[in-house]
Amino acid sequence: MHCLTNTVVQTLTANALLAVGAAPAMVDEPAEAEGFAAVASAVLVNVGTVSRRTAEAMRLAARSAAAAGTPWVLDPVAVGGLAFRTELAGELLGSRPAVVRGNASEVMALAGAGAGGRGVDSTAAADDAREAAVALAGRTGGVVAVSGAVDVVTDGTRTVRVGGGSPLLTRTTGAGCALGALVAAYVAATGDPLTGAVAAHAHVALAAEAAAAVAAGPGTFAPLWLDALDAVTDLSAARVTA
Amino acid sequence: MHCLTNTVVQTLTANALLAVGAAPAMVDEPAEAEGFAAVASAVLVNVGTVSRRTAEAMRLAARSAAAAGTPWVLDPVAVGGLAFRTELAGELLGSRPAVVRGNASEVMALAGAGAGGRGVDSTAAADDAREAAVALAGRTGGVVAVSGAVDVVTDGTRTVRVGGGSPLLTRTTGAGCALGALVAAYVAATGDPLTGAVAAHAHVALAAEAAAAVAAGPGTFAPLWLDALDAVTDLSAARVTA
Amino acid sequence: MHCLTNTVVQTLTANALLAVGAAPAMVDEPAEAEGFAAVASAVLVNVGTVSRRTAEAMRLAARSAAAAGTPWVLDPVAVGGLAFRTELAGELLGSRPAVVRGNASEVMALAGAGAGGRGVDSTAAADDAREAAVALAGRTGGVVAVSGAVDVVTDGTRTVRVGGGSPLLTRTTGAGCALGALVAAYVAATGDPLTGAVAAHAHVALAAEAAAAVAAGPGTFAPLWLDALDAVTDLSAARVTA
Repeated sequence: MHCLTNTVVQTLTANALLAVGAAPAMVDEPAEAEGFAAVASAVLVNVGTVSRRTAEAMRLAARSAAAAGTPWVLDPVAVGGLAFRTELAGELLGSRPAVVRGNASEVMALAGAGAGGRGVDSTAAADDAREAAVALAGRTGGVVAVSGAVDVVTDGTRTVRVGGGSPLLTRTTGAGCALGALVAAYVAATGDPLTGAVAAHAHVALAAEAAAAVAAGPGTFAPLWLDALDAVTDLSAARVTA
Repeated sequence: MHCLTNTVVQTLTANALLAVGAAPAMVDEPAEAEGFAAVASAVLVNVGTVSRRTAEAMRLAARSAAAAGTPWVLDPVAVGGLAFRTELAGELLGSRPAVVRGNASEVMALAGAGAGGRGVDSTAAADDAREAAVALAGRTGGVVAVSGAVDVVTDGTRTVRVGGGSPLLTRTTGAGCALGALVAAYVAATGDPLTGAVAAHAHVALAAEAAAAVAAGPGTFAPLWLDALDAVTDLSAARVTA
Repeated sequence: MHCLTNTVVQTLTANALLAVGAAPAMVDEPAEAEGFAAVASAVLVNVGTVSRRTAEAMRLAARSAAAAGTPWVLDPVAVGGLAFRTELAGELLGSRPAVVRGNASEVMALAGAGAGGRGVDSTAAADDAREAAVALAGRTGGVVAVSGAVDVVTDGTRTVRVGGGSPLLTRTTGAGCALGALVAAYVAATGDPLTGAVAAHAHVALAAEAAAAVAAGPGTFAPLWLDALDAVTDLSAARVTA
């Protein structure tokens, strides 16, 4: 799976993908990203530490994925608060991501409905962004997933909520970004953006619950969460509701 | 908190900030860094893996922070040994960092008093750099903190020492860099560079002692240190002396 | 030790080097890399997330190391599958790396013997690349190490195999890349590319076995492997055969 993601979270993202059986590859040089996106099973574009160079790689990879029919996921980190990436994310929507995954502020900003987030945190609950998510899904023709204490996932028509998880996810840098990568892997595996996005959120939530039960704090939580991502094989216990 | 830091330590730095209740954001594109630094609570500039691109982002962020009255911290990794970053760090001093945090070799090189370090390690004890630190604090009008077995923190007039900690900190890549970020967070929280710098060093040392007591080696130390950063809420046991 | 390596694995690589007593320094700005490579004890060049900028730093560092007689190691991540890095790696061979370390697909591609890998994974066993490794060693005048369930290390004349280890290494992002760094450190310490490469593979395998015996999954394996890298001091139990 081809990941163009931010340098803060690359390691956790790669390890999370390996834990669920996916094969991560992180290639962000424009000279390579275009061709690689066309042959990957899925592509993740996360703008967390985007630069002019990687923005160009993201544009090429998104277009290439769209042209090849490869599902790709957009994670609009901190969009709304910073002009350069906000413009880039708006432009990337034109390549029709199979899934957009972000927090409420980011999704509202991307949908043109919010007043802007404050960096990487969201000041709003996921349900506050439900209307924006539905509208955005209508525009992309794909799925929009809003992370929160209860996640909201919609294809514009159907809306599914995923509960559970653990607050320790919010104290682990890159947990949300790794979730975006798992969404891409699950969409590739299931062939369906809504099913894949819900399954990834359910998998992450169940693993977080298992890890939180044994972690001594936010530091030991991260490796235990990876162990649990590997151990979870049955998603039927997840709190998935309409 | 806005961090322009090196790619080796971004993850640990972000997790350390989350552990103490701060909100990290890592934005190093020049097109974004200037505006972001102006609205952040504090800014960290760490030159560990600086490139021409991120050097420009650092110049803009430091100037922007200075103009906005935002406290910012300079971590002059390997300054003295490498010409490009040594020149950059010297230039950044013009934006008057609230705190400079480094090892003895780096502080001596930055003060023009040393013969140059050997990469990221210091070959000198913190106290060897005390005079250089006092001189440097006089030039910046801020605080200079020298890390070592016993840390030396000075505002040019008052000098405080922080003992304790663990040698395992020196075997964990990025522990010193994360300390620089915690200094920035504490300066923002306390409103005072000397108080903030001492508190951050004390917090790191106490957490290191707690983690070292239960770690089986340098690998398990890192997550346990993050747990301990989260658990430490009382700094009164720290070995802070004049 | 000077590492020009990919941003996904920098942290694990630095911590692995610290665990075995080496001193990592990651400098990838062209303005700094050339001079730094000349004074380092060894240099690692890993093309995992290479860009045009870091490619230039790699060219300069490899040439500088070669001119100074500093041993350097080439890790040709995903070479064969992507044109930009494949061309770069071929060019870097001209600076005669002391060791090339990769998986079977990468070594076959670099030797011009393979049909190309699929990204960072190898679809072939290490022994499948033995002939290619011998041929490549003949061209560079150095050692070629092929990682697999049983590693194959050759100087073109003598071939040594290293068994043991753990499948959990393949589920830890950067374990192979960290091995490349340890090869460089061991070559510097032993003064002999074949001895150094074999010792590094043996050290990694023994540490992996110790960590796998106590890890609860792929997430907890990584910190325990670092602990074990630190704890292993005797390589005589390693499964090294002709």
